[in-house]
Amino acid sequence: MTQVILDISTSLDGYVAGPRPTLDDPLGEGGEGLHEWIVRLETWRKQHGLEGGVTGPDAELVDEYVARQGAVVMGRKMFSGGSGPWEDDPNAGGWWGDEPPFRVPVFVVTHHEREPLVLKGTTMNFVTDGVEAAIAQARDAADGKDVAVAGGAEVAQQALAAGLLDEIQLHVSPVLLGGGTLLFGDLDAPVALERTRAVDSPNAAHLRYRVVR
Amino acid sequence: MTQVILDISTSLDGYVAGPRPTLDDPLGEGGEGLHEWIVRLETWRKQHGLEGGVTGPDAELVDEYVARQGAVVMGRKMFSGGSGPWEDDPNAGGWWGDEPPFRVPVFVVTHHEREPLVLKGTTMNFVTDGVEAAIAQARDAADGKDVAVAGGAEVAQQALAAGLLDEIQLHVSPVLLGGGTLLFGDLDAPVALERTRAVDSPNAAHLRYRVVR
Repeated sequence: MTQVILDISTSLDGYVAGPRPTLDDPLGEGGEGLHEWIVRLETWRKQHGLEGGVTGPDAELVDEYVARQGAVVMGRKMFSGGSGPWEDDPNAGGWWGDEPPFRVPVFVVTHHEREPLVLKGTTMNFVTDGVEAAIAQARDAADGKDVAVAGGAEVAQQALAAGLLDEIQLHVSPVLLGGGTLLFGDLDAPVALERTRAVDSPNAAHLRYRVVR
Repeated sequence: MTQVILDISTSLDGYVAGPRPTLDDPLGEGGEGLHEWIVRLETWRKQHGLEGGVTGPDAELVDEYVARQGAVVMGRKMFSGGSGPWEDDPNAGGWWGDEPPFRVPVFVVTHHEREPLVLKGTTMNFVTDGVEAAIAQARDAADGKDVAVAGGAEVAQQALAAGLLDEIQLHVSPVLLGGGTLLFGDLDAPVALERTRAVDSPNAAHLRYRVVR
């Protein structure tokens, strides 16, 4: 049965991007530390034409997770790389390039109507009627596999508020950002969670929870 | 050798208190979820005259931690229970009562001069010349054992900014607060950490890091 899973890297203090982001550095100061755990992986490096890299619990977790994944939902900023040059160019491919690291359909929540963008390994679809519609379309496309909500914070909060998340998996990186974009900055009410799994490594603590409704 | 350790419970999204705190509920909405993991422990319940409770990895961690502890540092709000009736009463004992859950000296960072408060099992000392002085006094009192910085957020941030923390241990509770008091809301620059230990249970993920200087 399809599970809708928020899957995102955060700092130990709950940020998904650091302070003072720029065009060159959309993740803000210290933000590169959020994803160090994943760019060190052999699987990631292979995918990007690089040699070397590590295996181990982080890699096993990603492999397992990707195998269960049937579709991905993301926000417009995550597609375009922040307020970059892609933002207003209707023909731009986003900062993901010609071969994004997805092997399943992607659904982008956006206000701008746009034809699907067919890339190597994936098609990016643009959904203009909100996160609920995007998750519904992703669910259809996933055909029984899981739907990953990949971020950013705005889409994550909308999905949580609408009761659309079954699970939350955070990859907690060993860094404090002390400012920037909080994953959950403004919920209406506290949300109880049930811890379902934890995979730990020095590179990141991977904490997985079921959302209690 | 004495280690200065920030030791505090946070929500999965980085808050040490929920939104809209009141006199009756200084931890804010949902804030009681932060400490559920500890009030369930047999050791905690015994200490508070209650029967039952759980043992297991959380309890072992606390026992080990308390055994290494030689002194505790906390902020004025943590001593007085927020902006409660104790705040302006120079003779009040804080909301910790006559027998606080500390068996070592406590150093309270405050602007109000006050004679030490001798209670059952501990003496609360009031330090008016800042967090650095409080940690120095606690270090002396600890006599080779560890100094625990117990919160709140303000004291934690001051200690981190002054380069006084050797380690950070967060007890991450399975709850999202989505607002309230962030543990690290406004650092000057990102802080790199090195994960030294993780103890996991369904009640809390206990993540411990060395501060990289």
